[in-house]
Amino acid sequence: MKTDIEIAQEAVIQPIVDVAATIGLEENDIELHGKYKAKLSMDLYEKIKDKPNGKLILVTSINPTPAGEGKSTTTVGLGQALNRIGKKAIIALREPSLGPSFGIKGGAAGGGYSQVIPMEDINLHFTGDFHAITSAHNLLSAMLDNHLHQGNELQIDPRKILWKRVIDLNDRALRNIVVGLGGPVQGVPREDGFDITVASEVMAILCLADNLMDLKERISRIVVAYTYDNQPVTAADLKAAGAMALLLKDAIKPNLVQTLENTPAIIHGGPFANIAHGCNSVMATKMALKMSDYTVTEAGFGADLGAEKFFNIKCRLSGLKPDATVIVATVRALKMHGGVNRQELKTENIAALEQGFENLAKHIENVKQFEVPLVVAINRFPTDTEAELDKVAELCRLHGVEVALSEVWSKGGEGGVELAEKIVQLTENRQSYFHTLYSDCLSLKEKIDIIATRIYGADGVDYSPNAKKQIKELEQQGHRRLPICMAKTQSSLSDDPLKIGRPTNFRLNVREIRASIGAGFIVVLTGQMLTMPGLPKVPSAVNMDIDAKGKITGLF
Amino acid sequence: MKTDIEIAQEAVIQPIVDVAATIGLEENDIELHGKYKAKLSMDLYEKIKDKPNGKLILVTSINPTPAGEGKSTTTVGLGQALNRIGKKAIIALREPSLGPSFGIKGGAAGGGYSQVIPMEDINLHFTGDFHAITSAHNLLSAMLDNHLHQGNELQIDPRKILWKRVIDLNDRALRNIVVGLGGPVQGVPREDGFDITVASEVMAILCLADNLMDLKERISRIVVAYTYDNQPVTAADLKAAGAMALLLKDAIKPNLVQTLENTPAIIHGGPFANIAHGCNSVMATKMALKMSDYTVTEAGFGADLGAEKFFNIKCRLSGLKPDATVIVATVRALKMHGGVNRQELKTENIAALEQGFENLAKHIENVKQFEVPLVVAINRFPTDTEAELDKVAELCRLHGVEVALSEVWSKGGEGGVELAEKIVQLTENRQSYFHTLYSDCLSLKEKIDIIATRIYGADGVDYSPNAKKQIKELEQQGHRRLPICMAKTQSSLSDDPLKIGRPTNFRLNVREIRASIGAGFIVVLTGQMLTMPGLPKVPSAVNMDIDAKGKITGLF
Repeated sequence: MKTDIEIAQEAVIQPIVDVAATIGLEENDIELHGKYKAKLSMDLYEKIKDKPNGKLILVTSINPTPAGEGKSTTTVGLGQALNRIGKKAIIALREPSLGPSFGIKGGAAGGGYSQVIPMEDINLHFTGDFHAITSAHNLLSAMLDNHLHQGNELQIDPRKILWKRVIDLNDRALRNIVVGLGGPVQGVPREDGFDITVASEVMAILCLADNLMDLKERISRIVVAYTYDNQPVTAADLKAAGAMALLLKDAIKPNLVQTLENTPAIIHGGPFANIAHGCNSVMATKMALKMSDYTVTEAGFGADLGAEKFFNIKCRLSGLKPDATVIVATVRALKMHGGVNRQELKTENIAALEQGFENLAKHIENVKQFEVPLVVAINRFPTDTEAELDKVAELCRLHGVEVALSEVWSKGGEGGVELAEKIVQLTENRQSYFHTLYSDCLSLKEKIDIIATRIYGADGVDYSPNAKKQIKELEQQGHRRLPICMAKTQSSLSDDPLKIGRPTNFRLNVREIRASIGAGFIVVLTGQMLTMPGLPKVPSAVNMDIDAKGKITGLF
Repeated sequence: MKTDIEIAQEAVIQPIVDVAATIGLEENDIELHGKYKAKLSMDLYEKIKDKPNGKLILVTSINPTPAGEGKSTTTVGLGQALNRIGKKAIIALREPSLGPSFGIKGGAAGGGYSQVIPMEDINLHFTGDFHAITSAHNLLSAMLDNHLHQGNELQIDPRKILWKRVIDLNDRALRNIVVGLGGPVQGVPREDGFDITVASEVMAILCLADNLMDLKERISRIVVAYTYDNQPVTAADLKAAGAMALLLKDAIKPNLVQTLENTPAIIHGGPFANIAHGCNSVMATKMALKMSDYTVTEAGFGADLGAEKFFNIKCRLSGLKPDATVIVATVRALKMHGGVNRQELKTENIAALEQGFENLAKHIENVKQFEVPLVVAINRFPTDTEAELDKVAELCRLHGVEVALSEVWSKGGEGGVELAEKIVQLTENRQSYFHTLYSDCLSLKEKIDIIATRIYGADGVDYSPNAKKQIKELEQQGHRRLPICMAKTQSSLSDDPLKIGRPTNFRLNVREIRASIGAGFIVVLTGQMLTMPGLPKVPSAVNMDIDAKGKITGLF
């Protein structure tokens, strides 16, 4: 079996200008980054904004398990398959983070015969967007610490600084640090820490901004600290917003690449799916919709987190309306939700499958609450038995949902034709009555309650004393109208990662609230969220290499 | 008077493919980064390596003063002027660092009518080289701290770690930090700090490497720490070299841009001129020589640091041979070396000029020691009087050196025609007998002594007890053959920044030795070297902005 990078290296890649031409783009609409990557110009949206939108398809999944679901692979494969059946499709994905690439094998560029290419570049620096975000974020940090050092005119309390630094690496030693040591000319000592770049609020802002001026406005509103009097201090107060927007002038432009089958793919932004909303950029999605019949996109983690935030945050803030949803599952993963060990996944087990299906059933019910038409995609593995596949199909039918087998990993677009055809039927025959699940004018607690009870299936919500206080303060500061961004384990519908399947009889525990005022949402933390991963005992970096001819090994 | 960015924004910029065509480059030789920037492919050198070399011209200066000398501006202007008189010229410059741009006004892209463009991009992220260097450097840091955390098999002493982290910003609060706090799952607590990216040894390595495999070899040799037994631990020991080289696969490719007059400029690498050698990359210089009649390049700070290291480090390690040297001075700066205050520079003062000329005289003598033909360029200011200009010319003639007036800042290439013509005459009529000033086989102390006495004019060298011990250890470890990279104040020929003009009767004080084994030189510190600048009270970032049309203000 070939590795992903071997398959990618054998691909017949087309010059990106040719790929761009297939969606009507001319030379001046794109800025080349080498032969196979391009940025879409900021004038392009103005030019195409009056065209009708294509259909917007969201790919989401059941709660992820160690067995793997293949959501990105299905997204890429579905795009390829739609093109194969004569529809003009564009794939809209998130950019991968450098950190995990050097830590634990696994990227965000799809896999097998459903990948975006040039995968080496996409998985390394790509067009530099994340580096620009890192620079903009850390410029604000440097200006903040410089403000403390130069007399602290704003009276910032060094113990109440919310704005950490970021780096696009897995580096646990930077989680908790003390900066400003060394005496009076070396800054003001205080506790600090680094998050991974994808967890930066600047990343979330870039993904939600409508244009460069909106980006600058949102940056201005970022709350970085509180004063000794508990007044919020913003990036605007530090006069940093202009320089930060300047640093992001190119990062805001979506990137165009292609799949192994030369389907256009717009890859842009990559906000963390826990403390942020986990979707690619609004600008990329909007541009893709104007240039395609079908735009296929995805959201982070399972549907309880990814789809919920896609609907309630991204669509709410941008006005986007999804036309259909694909929920990806595998027989293996469903069996794990039914209690089977990872070692025993190859053995047929209909009982466990039926039990684990309850996880998928809940996600089906959830998507139906948003009134978006949906189809289930079963990402087929060689070890799946006919009886198992039949059982899933039967259970889906009982829930009133079509199911399609997908073999896009091993067969590329050809393996996704069934899914593509079902998506086309669905969007042609069924209207989407998409709506968000709560209105802006509810209280923050009412919004949290709706997500917890209706999406997670909780009996209710318990708040820590600290969280209660924070909610009260945020509402007093005028942030009651903001939507909620839940930070919860991806492994369970509940806040306990060990509760697989479809948990019942539980309450959601809200530990802490953080405000991303610039991005425009309130982050609700249920449990400890790691915003800076560590490297494993043997990082994948130790196996990476490049030879004299530029041939890369060890990168996936 | 227009600002640099206003002049740059009004330039008639040519598509970089057209600029590339003027030096014989075809489509496959370059990788576009937008319309006006390109990377030179790694195969290009193989293709052109048998062509004859053009002439290599080094632009250096007297010891810098607050009055400004205009070395980069003269470099760009000379390139433009050579093209204007019918010579095919390429300019080879260093890339500017992001940090100082947001701190104190001032860039490395020239000024007035002698700038490289697109200056906004060059002064911001450019083609991402520095970000790649930052990532590669910090990956090694993360792998080092992860090694400590995962059992410390190599027995690294956390108190003897030499490898700090880097960031491309001015951020004094990161100079001295403690990392790894927060308990046993958060790493191993230890003292650490951040340098600015240009101070990274990876930057120096990139600039001295001949190709990607040489780069990887040099990275392997980086000494990051010592064990409890005082044995050196390298990047190879941490198995980081392959992944780091992979991260640098594009950064190693030189970047092609143009000047305001469309002269090709290759901008690549930017090592710190104190703890590193301060020259653009060897690869860029070598490529430029194959494609031009004249390659004009510069080195950091004054000739005592910049030219000395260009000759003794860059030329030694690469085999490059300079054909002529330009020493840039201004009447204003010479008067400052003669003791005039900055406020009184507009007043004619022949006596101070004569006294300050001694600084220039010493640099003339120094370049002559390397037996490279030279010319002095006086970067003319409106306040210079005829009597002052005549006096400089007279004194230069007394020292057997031609002088040319340069007005490239206000007139572009036209203002540098006299200088260009003198350079052409010099290189056509005078042979360069370039040689380095010391041989590899001398002891480290003998090498330091030669630089101190023959270049700086010191009476001798005094070593701290620690420096003596370090020299002994490094020679025992087999590093006696390496060249010396002096870290000394740029403001004086001596190690005391207050000793302007031509100091005599002083001894050089060597405080500390650091080894850049990967880059291939021994750093000798004379005084405190700041490797992480701070922001001023009002950083220039606060005045930067970008509007809805993408128009930039406040960036120079």
